[in-house]
Amino acid sequence: MVNIGIIGVTGYAGEILIEILLKHPNIRIVNISAKIDLPQRISEIFPKFKNRLDLICAEPDLKEIAARCDLVFLALPHTVSMEIAPKLLASGKKVIDLSADYRLKDTKIYEKFYNTKHKDKIHLKGAIYGLPEIYRSKIKSAKLIANPGCYPTVCILALAPLVSLGLIDINSIIIDAKSGVTGAGRKIAEGFLFSEINEDFKAYKVNMHQHSPEINQELSNLAGKKIKVTFVPHLLPLNRGILATIYVNKTQNSKRKTQNLVSLYKRFYKDEAFVRIREEGVYPRIKDVVGTNFCDIGIKDSQNSVIIVACIDNLLKGASGQAVQNMNLMYKFPEQMGLA
Amino acid sequence: MVNIGIIGVTGYAGEILIEILLKHPNIRIVNISAKIDLPQRISEIFPKFKNRLDLICAEPDLKEIAARCDLVFLALPHTVSMEIAPKLLASGKKVIDLSADYRLKDTKIYEKFYNTKHKDKIHLKGAIYGLPEIYRSKIKSAKLIANPGCYPTVCILALAPLVSLGLIDINSIIIDAKSGVTGAGRKIAEGFLFSEINEDFKAYKVNMHQHSPEINQELSNLAGKKIKVTFVPHLLPLNRGILATIYVNKTQNSKRKTQNLVSLYKRFYKDEAFVRIREEGVYPRIKDVVGTNFCDIGIKDSQNSVIIVACIDNLLKGASGQAVQNMNLMYKFPEQMGLA
Amino acid sequence: MVNIGIIGVTGYAGEILIEILLKHPNIRIVNISAKIDLPQRISEIFPKFKNRLDLICAEPDLKEIAARCDLVFLALPHTVSMEIAPKLLASGKKVIDLSADYRLKDTKIYEKFYNTKHKDKIHLKGAIYGLPEIYRSKIKSAKLIANPGCYPTVCILALAPLVSLGLIDINSIIIDAKSGVTGAGRKIAEGFLFSEINEDFKAYKVNMHQHSPEINQELSNLAGKKIKVTFVPHLLPLNRGILATIYVNKTQNSKRKTQNLVSLYKRFYKDEAFVRIREEGVYPRIKDVVGTNFCDIGIKDSQNSVIIVACIDNLLKGASGQAVQNMNLMYKFPEQMGLA
Amino acid sequence: MVNIGIIGVTGYAGEILIEILLKHPNIRIVNISAKIDLPQRISEIFPKFKNRLDLICAEPDLKEIAARCDLVFLALPHTVSMEIAPKLLASGKKVIDLSADYRLKDTKIYEKFYNTKHKDKIHLKGAIYGLPEIYRSKIKSAKLIANPGCYPTVCILALAPLVSLGLIDINSIIIDAKSGVTGAGRKIAEGFLFSEINEDFKAYKVNMHQHSPEINQELSNLAGKKIKVTFVPHLLPLNRGILATIYVNKTQNSKRKTQNLVSLYKRFYKDEAFVRIREEGVYPRIKDVVGTNFCDIGIKDSQNSVIIVACIDNLLKGASGQAVQNMNLMYKFPEQMGLA
Repeated sequence: MVNIGIIGVTGYAGEILIEILLKHPNIRIVNISAKIDLPQRISEIFPKFKNRLDLICAEPDLKEIAARCDLVFLALPHTVSMEIAPKLLASGKKVIDLSADYRLKDTKIYEKFYNTKHKDKIHLKGAIYGLPEIYRSKIKSAKLIANPGCYPTVCILALAPLVSLGLIDINSIIIDAKSGVTGAGRKIAEGFLFSEINEDFKAYKVNMHQHSPEINQELSNLAGKKIKVTFVPHLLPLNRGILATIYVNKTQNSKRKTQNLVSLYKRFYKDEAFVRIREEGVYPRIKDVVGTNFCDIGIKDSQNSVIIVACIDNLLKGASGQAVQNMNLMYKFPEQMGLA
Repeated sequence: MVNIGIIGVTGYAGEILIEILLKHPNIRIVNISAKIDLPQRISEIFPKFKNRLDLICAEPDLKEIAARCDLVFLALPHTVSMEIAPKLLASGKKVIDLSADYRLKDTKIYEKFYNTKHKDKIHLKGAIYGLPEIYRSKIKSAKLIANPGCYPTVCILALAPLVSLGLIDINSIIIDAKSGVTGAGRKIAEGFLFSEINEDFKAYKVNMHQHSPEINQELSNLAGKKIKVTFVPHLLPLNRGILATIYVNKTQNSKRKTQNLVSLYKRFYKDEAFVRIREEGVYPRIKDVVGTNFCDIGIKDSQNSVIIVACIDNLLKGASGQAVQNMNLMYKFPEQMGLA
Repeated sequence: MVNIGIIGVTGYAGEILIEILLKHPNIRIVNISAKIDLPQRISEIFPKFKNRLDLICAEPDLKEIAARCDLVFLALPHTVSMEIAPKLLASGKKVIDLSADYRLKDTKIYEKFYNTKHKDKIHLKGAIYGLPEIYRSKIKSAKLIANPGCYPTVCILALAPLVSLGLIDINSIIIDAKSGVTGAGRKIAEGFLFSEINEDFKAYKVNMHQHSPEINQELSNLAGKKIKVTFVPHLLPLNRGILATIYVNKTQNSKRKTQNLVSLYKRFYKDEAFVRIREEGVYPRIKDVVGTNFCDIGIKDSQNSVIIVACIDNLLKGASGQAVQNMNLMYKFPEQMGLA
Repeated sequence: MVNIGIIGVTGYAGEILIEILLKHPNIRIVNISAKIDLPQRISEIFPKFKNRLDLICAEPDLKEIAARCDLVFLALPHTVSMEIAPKLLASGKKVIDLSADYRLKDTKIYEKFYNTKHKDKIHLKGAIYGLPEIYRSKIKSAKLIANPGCYPTVCILALAPLVSLGLIDINSIIIDAKSGVTGAGRKIAEGFLFSEINEDFKAYKVNMHQHSPEINQELSNLAGKKIKVTFVPHLLPLNRGILATIYVNKTQNSKRKTQNLVSLYKRFYKDEAFVRIREEGVYPRIKDVVGTNFCDIGIKDSQNSVIIVACIDNLLKGASGQAVQNMNLMYKFPEQMGLA
C-alpha cells in the first residue's frame, strides 16, 4: 500500500485524481489539502464523494504530509508548485507535479510565458517530463515528475512518429487545437461563465499559448533540431476533451517513399496500452476517449502532406490519468492499474 | 423621437434592451452607462454591436442623463435602482426600473428577501407594476414602472384567469419553475461557471426564492384574498427561457361546472398581443418563445385539478421586452412596436 | 466466473452494461448481440471499446447464447423482451430484463400503455421487480428480474419512507420529473435531433407517461392501498441524469407529530449502500450522481407538506447499474461489486 | 410589395427565411410549401409563428406559385432544386436557390461530389453566384441566384483580399473550419441525435467535403489561377455559427513588403455593410455574429505567414440572410433591409 497525498484537491485535476485513486487497489489516500478558508469534509465540497471518501480537506500541512505520505500529487496552480515541491523532495517524498513549473527546461522561456521568476532551478534540472510513451525508463526511477500539459500530451503523441523519424518538414507544423472548458481549471472569471461559453466557440491566445514552448521543447528533443510549431487553441462549449487537427508537409524524401503511415504509427506505438491508432480514413472523436486514459490518433496520408486528428480526455491522459500512469511506473505497478 | 437612456447596460437586460431598441423606429438611444472602470465603446464591450451602435459607455452622469433623455431604463442590481430613480424622477424623467426595488409594496417583505432597508418609500407607493396584461391603463400614465421579475411574469399570466375568476383552491398552488442561466444576470461566481452548470440541473432556493412574495402579492391582488404559493425554481443548462409547470386543485364549485378551460383562457386573453393559448393537449416549449416577447400557455384540465405549462423568454417578456412594451404604452406607441 | 450475455447491446443501456461489466472482477462477457445488419466488432460500433473488448456483435443466436451464458441481460425495446425471455428461461438461464415487459403485473394496464398484447403472462407472474431496496430478498433467488424504469426508480425510492409509514395524504402526490435525453434510448426521430433539444426544455406526455402505472403499482404495494400520482416528465438538454421534485401533503396525523423527516429517511435507508440522504436544507443535483449508482435525496419538511428532491443517473441506478446490482444479489456477490 | 414564395419551408433555411421576411417592409410572403404529408398551418409546424404568419404549408403547386409570386426562394435539398428552378424561370419568375445545384460551373465536379447527373446545364451557365461582396453588380440583374454554401461564404470572404491581391502562396491555404449543427440541415440520422453530438466534437469528411470545390472555384476566379485548398470541417455541439481558422504562407514578395494587413482588409471591405474587420490582435467569436448577417474577420499577421479567424451565422450570412441580401440587390432595396 502506497500512501498518497494530494495538494490542491479542490480543482478539476484534484477531483479526478480522487475519482481514479478510489478505484486503485494498491494505494491509500491519506491526506488531501487545498487553499481553503475552513477545513471541510471532501464530501461536502464534492457531494458525489459522500459515502466514498471521508477525509477532511484543510490547508496543506507539509510536515504532516511528509510524515504520512510516500508520494504527493501537486494539483496546484503554476508558480505555487515550485514553492512546495522542494520541501517534499527534501523529506524524501516522491512528487508528481501537475503544474507547469517543472516542464520547461529553459527558465527564460518559463519566465516569459508564466510571468514570474523560476524559484527552484535545482530540482528543475532533474525533473522528468512525465510522458510515459517517450520517457518511460526515466520515469521509473524519478523522484520528481513534471506531468505534461494537456495540449502538449496530445500534440506530442500525434507527431512523435513523424518527427522522430524525420519524415516531415519541421517548419510546416500547424496545430489547430480545440479544448473543452475544464482544460483551463476551475477559474472564476467572466469568460468562463456558462452563458459566455454555451453556444459560442472562439480561438484564444492565437499562436501565443503557454503550451507552445512545451510542445516545441519536446518535439525539438525528438527531432534533434529546433522546432517551432504554429499553435492555435480554441475553446469548445463542452466539459471534457481535446481534439487537435494537425497539418504537416512531408519532406522531399518522404514524399518519394511508399510507406503506409497508419502502419508506421501502429508499429511506433505497438507496445503502448494507451495509444490507439485508427484505420485509414477513420478519425477519432472526443467521445471515443472521454472517461478514458487513451490518446486516439487518425491519419490522412496524402502525396505531399499529412493531416493528423488526435484526441484525449484533458483531465485523464491530459492530467490526472497520466499522473497515475506515472505513479504506476514509479512503483512498478501494472501501468494500467486503476486506469482501465 | 423619444430620447432614451440605459443605466446598467453591461448586464444581460441592458444588452437585450439595446438589441430591441436598435429596431424600434420611434426612439433614439442617447446615453448608455454602467459601473465600469474606464469609459469604453459599447462595440468593444459587445463586439456584436460593431457598426450598429457607436456610443461610449461610462459611469452614469445623472445630470447629463437628465438633460438628454426623456425616459431612462434602469437595468441595475437590486438596491442600486432606488438610489438613482428618485433623482431622475425629480428631474421629471420617466423611469422603467428592471430591478426588484419598486415591485413589493410591503417594505418589510422587501427587506426580508433583499437583506437591505428600502430607501425610497415615497416613490414606491406610486410605482406601477409593469405587467401590461393586468395594469395596462395605469401603465399608460405612469412615471415610474416596476418592471416585473421573470418568474412572476410567467406565473402570474399563467394563473391570472383561474385566480381572478375564483376557480381554484388558492391554497393548493404549486409552481415548479425552470429557468435558463441568464435569469440570474451576469453573475461572476463559481456556481455560474460553464462546467458547473453544463450537464447539470438542480433546484435552488427551494420555496424561499425572492420572487415568491412578488407572485404572492400579485395573485393576492387578483384573488382579493391572501395567496401563498409553493414555488421551487430550478436552473436549466441553457441560456434563455423559463418554463413553469403549475399544479392547482379546483374548488368544489368549479369541479361541478362544465366549462372548457382552454376557451376560458382564450377569452381572458383575447385582446392580448403577447399571450398565446395552446389548444387542448398541446403544451408550449421554451424554443417556441425564445427570441420573442410571447408568453405561451398550455392547459391540462382534469376532473379535480389543472396542470398549466407556461413559458417565456426571461430576457424579453421576462425583462427587457416587457420593459419596451411598457414604454410603448407610456408613449402611446403601438404596443408591439419593436417587439414583433 | 459467471458467463454473461447481453442482447440489445447497441443501445445506451447495453453500452453502459459493457462499461460496468468490464470492471467487474467476477464475470466474463461471452456473448453480445443486437438487431444489426451485418456482424460487426463492438469496437467498431463503439470505438471507445477498442483494445478493451474484442467481441463480435451479431443478431442474437439464442441456442448459442443459452449454451454459453449463465445470465443474460435483455437491453431490448419493450415488447421484444417477452418474446426472448421465455426461451432463455426454458433453458435454465437467469434473465435480467431492462425493458418494461415484466414490470406491470396487470396486463390490461400494460396493454393500454404499450399498445400491444402481453405475450408471456406465465413468466410475468413470477418476475421479480428488481428494486433491491424494496425487494432484496426476493431478488436473491429470482430467475427473472424486471429491472425498474428510470423514473420509477427515483420516484419510488424518494417516496417509499413516507408512503410505507403512512405519513402523507396519498391523493396529494405530485411528481415533477426532469430527465436527460438518454432516458428515451437511442431513438432516431426528429424530436431527438441535437438542434431540437439543445437550448430547449419541454414537458411531454403530461400526466400520461407509461411510467405512471409502474410508479402507482409499487407505491400502492407499499401503502397497502391504491395510489395514483400526478406525474409530469420533462426533457432536459443534457445526456444523463434524472431529477424529480416531489410535492406531497401530510396527513392530519403526521402534521401533529414532531418527527424529523431527514432522520426518518436516514433510518429507513441506513443499510443501503446506494441511497444517500442529504442534510436539512441541502438538495442533491444531477452532477452529484452522474457516473454513479447512487440515488440522492433531499427533503424540505414544512408544517403541512413535504418537498422531496431526488436524483439518479438514469443509465446507472435507472437502468444498467441497477441491473448489475441485481445480478450481484442473484450471485451472492458483494452488492457494490463493479459499481463503486 | 414583392410577392414571395418559399419552397422547402420546413427546413432550417426556410424557417429562418420566414423569420427575416416577417420583418422586411417591402415584401409579402404569399406562398409556402414543402414536401409534406398533409397541408398544415405553418404555426402548427413551428409554434413560434403562431399569431405571426397564418399560411398553410402544402406540397408545392408550381402553377399556383408562378401565378402569385414574383420571386421564389428554393430552400430545397441538393438535386431537387434543379428540377424546379427551370419551370419557375420559364414562367418569368426570379429564383434564389439555396441548394448547391447552380453553384459549381463544372458539372463533372458537381456530379462527383453530389453523386448525381446535373439536369439543368442551360440555366447553370447563367446562374450568378450570390456572394454580394464579390458579384454585386451581376446579382442586381440576375434571374437565377446560386446562393453560396455556408463554409464557402466565410472562407471566400476571409481569403478574398489576400488571394485577389496575390499576397499569398496559393498552394499553402489550410482551412480548419468548425460549424454548428444546423449547418447540415434538419437531417434525421443517428449522427445528429442530441446525445451523439452533445459533449462531443469531431472532424468529418476530412479534406473531401462537397464545399471544397466551391471554395476552390471562387478563389481560383479571384486569383486568376487554379487554387486547391486543404479543407477540414468539424462539427461543434451548438446550434448556429461557423468559425474558420485559416493558415496561409506569404509569397516571397509579400514577405518583403511592409504593409499592414488589418488596414488592407479594412480598405478592401470599406463599403461593405456586412463585413467587419477586427483590430490587430482581436479575433471574432461565434457569439459576435449569431443572429446577424455579419461576417467578422480577425487577422494575425506574422513575418512569413498569416492566420485568419473568421465567422458567420451559418443560417444568416451562410444561407437565408445572404439570400435576402441578394433579393434586396435584385429589387434595388437598401441592401440591409430586413437584416439590420
